[in-house]
Amino acid sequence: MSHNSFGHLFRVTTWGESHGPALGCVIDGCPPGIPFDLERVQAALDRRRPGQSRFVTQRQEADQVDVLSGVFEDDRTDGIVTTGAPISLMIRNTDQRSKDYSEIRDRYRPGHADVTYDAKYGVRDYRGGGRSSARETAARVAAGAVAQFVLDQLFGNVAIRAGLVSMGPHDAAARDWAAVDQNPFFCPDPHAAKAWEKALDDARKSGNSLGGIVEAEATGLPAGLGAPVYGKLDQDIASALMSINAAKAVEIGDGMAAGRLSGVENADEMRMKDGKIDYLSNHAGGILGGISTGQPVVARVAIKPTSSILTPRKSVTAQGEETEVVTKGRHDPCVAIRAVPVVEAMMAITLCDHALRHRGQVGTFQV
Amino acid sequence: MSHNSFGHLFRVTTWGESHGPALGCVIDGCPPGIPFDLERVQAALDRRRPGQSRFVTQRQEADQVDVLSGVFEDDRTDGIVTTGAPISLMIRNTDQRSKDYSEIRDRYRPGHADVTYDAKYGVRDYRGGGRSSARETAARVAAGAVAQFVLDQLFGNVAIRAGLVSMGPHDAAARDWAAVDQNPFFCPDPHAAKAWEKALDDARKSGNSLGGIVEAEATGLPAGLGAPVYGKLDQDIASALMSINAAKAVEIGDGMAAGRLSGVENADEMRMKDGKIDYLSNHAGGILGGISTGQPVVARVAIKPTSSILTPRKSVTAQGEETEVVTKGRHDPCVAIRAVPVVEAMMAITLCDHALRHRGQVGTFQV
Amino acid sequence: MSHNSFGHLFRVTTWGESHGPALGCVIDGCPPGIPFDLERVQAALDRRRPGQSRFVTQRQEADQVDVLSGVFEDDRTDGIVTTGAPISLMIRNTDQRSKDYSEIRDRYRPGHADVTYDAKYGVRDYRGGGRSSARETAARVAAGAVAQFVLDQLFGNVAIRAGLVSMGPHDAAARDWAAVDQNPFFCPDPHAAKAWEKALDDARKSGNSLGGIVEAEATGLPAGLGAPVYGKLDQDIASALMSINAAKAVEIGDGMAAGRLSGVENADEMRMKDGKIDYLSNHAGGILGGISTGQPVVARVAIKPTSSILTPRKSVTAQGEETEVVTKGRHDPCVAIRAVPVVEAMMAITLCDHALRHRGQVGTFQV
Amino acid sequence: MSHNSFGHLFRVTTWGESHGPALGCVIDGCPPGIPFDLERVQAALDRRRPGQSRFVTQRQEADQVDVLSGVFEDDRTDGIVTTGAPISLMIRNTDQRSKDYSEIRDRYRPGHADVTYDAKYGVRDYRGGGRSSARETAARVAAGAVAQFVLDQLFGNVAIRAGLVSMGPHDAAARDWAAVDQNPFFCPDPHAAKAWEKALDDARKSGNSLGGIVEAEATGLPAGLGAPVYGKLDQDIASALMSINAAKAVEIGDGMAAGRLSGVENADEMRMKDGKIDYLSNHAGGILGGISTGQPVVARVAIKPTSSILTPRKSVTAQGEETEVVTKGRHDPCVAIRAVPVVEAMMAITLCDHALRHRGQVGTFQV
Repeated sequence: MSHNSFGHLFRVTTWGESHGPALGCVIDGCPPGIPFDLERVQAALDRRRPGQSRFVTQRQEADQVDVLSGVFEDDRTDGIVTTGAPISLMIRNTDQRSKDYSEIRDRYRPGHADVTYDAKYGVRDYRGGGRSSARETAARVAAGAVAQFVLDQLFGNVAIRAGLVSMGPHDAAARDWAAVDQNPFFCPDPHAAKAWEKALDDARKSGNSLGGIVEAEATGLPAGLGAPVYGKLDQDIASALMSINAAKAVEIGDGMAAGRLSGVENADEMRMKDGKIDYLSNHAGGILGGISTGQPVVARVAIKPTSSILTPRKSVTAQGEETEVVTKGRHDPCVAIRAVPVVEAMMAITLCDHALRHRGQVGTFQV
Repeated sequence: MSHNSFGHLFRVTTWGESHGPALGCVIDGCPPGIPFDLERVQAALDRRRPGQSRFVTQRQEADQVDVLSGVFEDDRTDGIVTTGAPISLMIRNTDQRSKDYSEIRDRYRPGHADVTYDAKYGVRDYRGGGRSSARETAARVAAGAVAQFVLDQLFGNVAIRAGLVSMGPHDAAARDWAAVDQNPFFCPDPHAAKAWEKALDDARKSGNSLGGIVEAEATGLPAGLGAPVYGKLDQDIASALMSINAAKAVEIGDGMAAGRLSGVENADEMRMKDGKIDYLSNHAGGILGGISTGQPVVARVAIKPTSSILTPRKSVTAQGEETEVVTKGRHDPCVAIRAVPVVEAMMAITLCDHALRHRGQVGTFQV
Repeated sequence: MSHNSFGHLFRVTTWGESHGPALGCVIDGCPPGIPFDLERVQAALDRRRPGQSRFVTQRQEADQVDVLSGVFEDDRTDGIVTTGAPISLMIRNTDQRSKDYSEIRDRYRPGHADVTYDAKYGVRDYRGGGRSSARETAARVAAGAVAQFVLDQLFGNVAIRAGLVSMGPHDAAARDWAAVDQNPFFCPDPHAAKAWEKALDDARKSGNSLGGIVEAEATGLPAGLGAPVYGKLDQDIASALMSINAAKAVEIGDGMAAGRLSGVENADEMRMKDGKIDYLSNHAGGILGGISTGQPVVARVAIKPTSSILTPRKSVTAQGEETEVVTKGRHDPCVAIRAVPVVEAMMAITLCDHALRHRGQVGTFQV
Repeated sequence: MSHNSFGHLFRVTTWGESHGPALGCVIDGCPPGIPFDLERVQAALDRRRPGQSRFVTQRQEADQVDVLSGVFEDDRTDGIVTTGAPISLMIRNTDQRSKDYSEIRDRYRPGHADVTYDAKYGVRDYRGGGRSSARETAARVAAGAVAQFVLDQLFGNVAIRAGLVSMGPHDAAARDWAAVDQNPFFCPDPHAAKAWEKALDDARKSGNSLGGIVEAEATGLPAGLGAPVYGKLDQDIASALMSINAAKAVEIGDGMAAGRLSGVENADEMRMKDGKIDYLSNHAGGILGGISTGQPVVARVAIKPTSSILTPRKSVTAQGEETEVVTKGRHDPCVAIRAVPVVEAMMAITLCDHALRHRGQVGTFQV
């Protein structure tokens, strides 16, 4: 069962609410002897951290991570390493303003999970969205950094990169991954990023918000990751990315467009190059029959626009009265921006899980 | 772990290869006392059965299902009912022509899993695609029928309908679910279906194939199904639909288009109607925060064009020699057509699983 | 969830009732390329088969096993090998006599699961115990043979042996594993076995039955199998053996007696021998902290006496009337005898699962 | 997979090492609306807390528990209640003395997991046993208290009681559960407890330790909990109790003795009483066919003597040198004593998990 856990052999369980004392995760199944660099975990969190530009929420959270278990250092280890025991990571919440939410305690914000949590549970920590808040994704980013440590150790040079490739109706034309950290949108197209500033300012000032599409690419993976027929790599990527707050669609390779192609167009032809299979195209996004081909794994996820907006929307209360909702507070005008490091993290976790699963399924071995 | 199983409380494990003696599934977790109608299981299989028009594969399989365990009838039960024990369903293969495949034993068919299965496993039942064949989906359809029995018993009138809403570049304009079984494309638009005949004939005759998009809608579900944050209903639908052979993208509600909307456009406003919440739109596809709202659950899946085509494509052999591949044999010119009943089945299995999961998570009870 | 499945990476799902058309199992997670010898599977089943002496049930079942998926042979493979796909094994029931059970359809046989299945499910295939029948264990034995193939491939010379070491109040004095197949009790003490004939005849003739204790020993395993703290090897052995019909206790190493020892007595001291750790005793039964030491793994399971006896016992009916039950039909006078191959199978499955799990947890690797 | 998690629908994941900054657990699947009494959680921990008599370790830990997520209180809830979100509980370590362990860093203590953790992981937090320390059981006790809250809410008056029924060779004659908290041994026999003082003083002073047997009884449960054939209640109790540090055997009902009985002796006969089934005995320990009968569930677990003793024992070092080990530090002379609240906790967790599982398996329902 997986209410609050993701992955099988590399299993991440997250906990915590937006306005509780802390949030965190427990990583179970991390192999032992993996170099653990807390500064890199912190750096990953810093990328996702709120308050860094006018294009994201102004909530000020240090998002400082503590590691409580699962790592060890003494004079026999080469720095801090994992031990194979569960790794507990915790991030204290520091800038909760619960009073921001008292007004909408009983009013269901359209597009939010308020109404469904009440339908399901009957009780709800409404402060800041409680468990449904995007703050939960901080724990994912921390876990994703650890997954990346494992992938580094296993494969040497796995690179997982993501960027915002469209914001509302505006598309990025380029995929310059080096540009992603050079603009406040995590956009791989520096020119598009420049133009997006005005577009998002306009949306924000008019009490509106914008959706976006995040694209991720993972390179350096071997062929063979994935498990037919219900543990497919693309299936698990779809699950991973759709679990992100506000996600509404996931594409692998050509994605929806693949449904509009012919078989002749869609075939990724093969030739030999340096003794290895060389694919002449990558419509498949690096996955065939649920198993990686060794090409770049390419996925996209659509993030709906922030539901918390200043424009009044019709709604109802928990008591069944009609009302209007205006969501004040500190919100991201385009949550897809800060989804970028989350997408990278979920890709890393999924790929790490499959790398470890792969071991149990193939070949013979000596323990 | 879930190599060949799907679901948690309603858990379906499938087995079997395209050209082995049989295929089937074991359903674990079906509640007891559910009326079991073998004819309806067979009817579901008959819809997916090959050889029923010139637009699908000409392989002739009766797809007759046997139930080997988990059901019981005596004078105290009202017909055949489930007992709570695992339900084993088996379908014999009868029209295997293994020699069709000897030619491509060592040649990797572009777009197929040949190359990745070899990379992963080193050994492969190449006959008809072996385990990666769409024949495996017959077992899904049988299990989906049982899931529907459970949903019927739980909720009374859950309707799960799917149809082919685009074939290659051609879109259906209507969603007349009653029309779906009136044309060879499972298309909910009778006019489109008529026009598609020539399009698919052309593709087939020119040695080509077409992709397609299947849309599914489930109505009659209560609010509250789904489990944040990693057991979200939309997450599990994404996993279910992406596990289908040749699937490349999954959308919930507005899907990819949601990434291009503004928050004002995307909000599903609410009013009261007859004492219940009435949504003024359904951009969300019936799911908020991973939990059903009670609106129709809407999902789409893109199916890539059949990779088995008569047009020669560049490829390589298992021995690393360059070659060309022409895939003869009996293939669907548009696999998306026969994916329609499979999409319905995966939706039923996912919703049934979540209905059972819901019980363990809410309220108090008397055993 | 695990209603009808056991294991994680080597996962066995069984199905079938005593008096249904067939029973079987699906093995998911078996690595590819493992030599598959159907005759050895059949030979394992033949050991468990009923009707082979007057000390077991006289039901005549050929217990012939069919393999329906997951294995393959062509001119490139060295005989039949596994492919990594799920292995479906089926055994037809041939000697059902359902009328034997009509009399006790509504009478709860003391010691049997009749009363609890009714309490749980409300509907029950009462014929021969239905799903609770020991016939289910045939599927375990088949799966255990496959697990042994994997262990052979992984480690070379893992031997898993079991025997009946006490029957009722009578103890075996020796552990001569070679003697186990030389007597009708699977007893490792030939002298005891001789004496047990009269004891069991007496019990049977007086309408009674006897319990027994089965001991298992696995040798040739490496150190390192097992996973703290809730995936301990001894924990999973306890689960495996307690899942066997009529099991009431499981011991590892000294077992219950360990609770009566002092720390000085209980310590398994260590010395070096040929560059390896040499333990001077094995109170621990080869497991410390849930992980194998490399010593023989030793476990015992207590099997209660057959509940189906000819001596009348007080009971009640499903309708709440008081009655007496005499269980006629064909029953084992000591079910612990035929539990011996089942214990071996469950040990093999558990060890195989942990061997595969071990791979995901340790060291670095190249895929 | 379950390296560090236990349970399925009520799933407890523990983390933390003996000498790390903290330890804790995350409980996933706790139903919403359950009254959460932090003082009762603390009270449960206080019973297990070290340093309370001369018969347990002198380590001084406050074992103060913090709740970090999953509960909520406002003016609409009746006190603090669970929300259905994961409950994170944390206990800070305060009295670590890591230097106590420097001497045995490279010496394998006989009976401890030192040697097997090194064999498995190659790296080890040796301080205080690290992850293999019984300090991990504090997290179990906290989770067990929450499980008890759920059982209270579901069934009203479930009582789970455990006591030390033998210490070394000395047996308790009575089962006076009210006496358990009146003596430093958690012994249900006040007279035995008095006599045990000298026995344990003698063992401790002579540099020795004693094993023990803990018996648990759960009353107030309905019939129907448990799931054949691999989710049996007794199977999961066996798994739960064998997962406790130093456990070597688990018995249900008559346990090992059941293997020595005849069928006539072992039958639990039934009569009607007040319209309900009344069992005339309880050899089965309240479980038939893996499902609860409604009688008291009775289990026992054997705990081996503390391996940390002052008597020198032969051992080897990690470098393969022969040595002798004397384990100084602060250790329990009989770890079975403090295992008593841990046994209660594991029983509560297992029963709570099965109570929630039961809901998904039976009857029809309205969500």
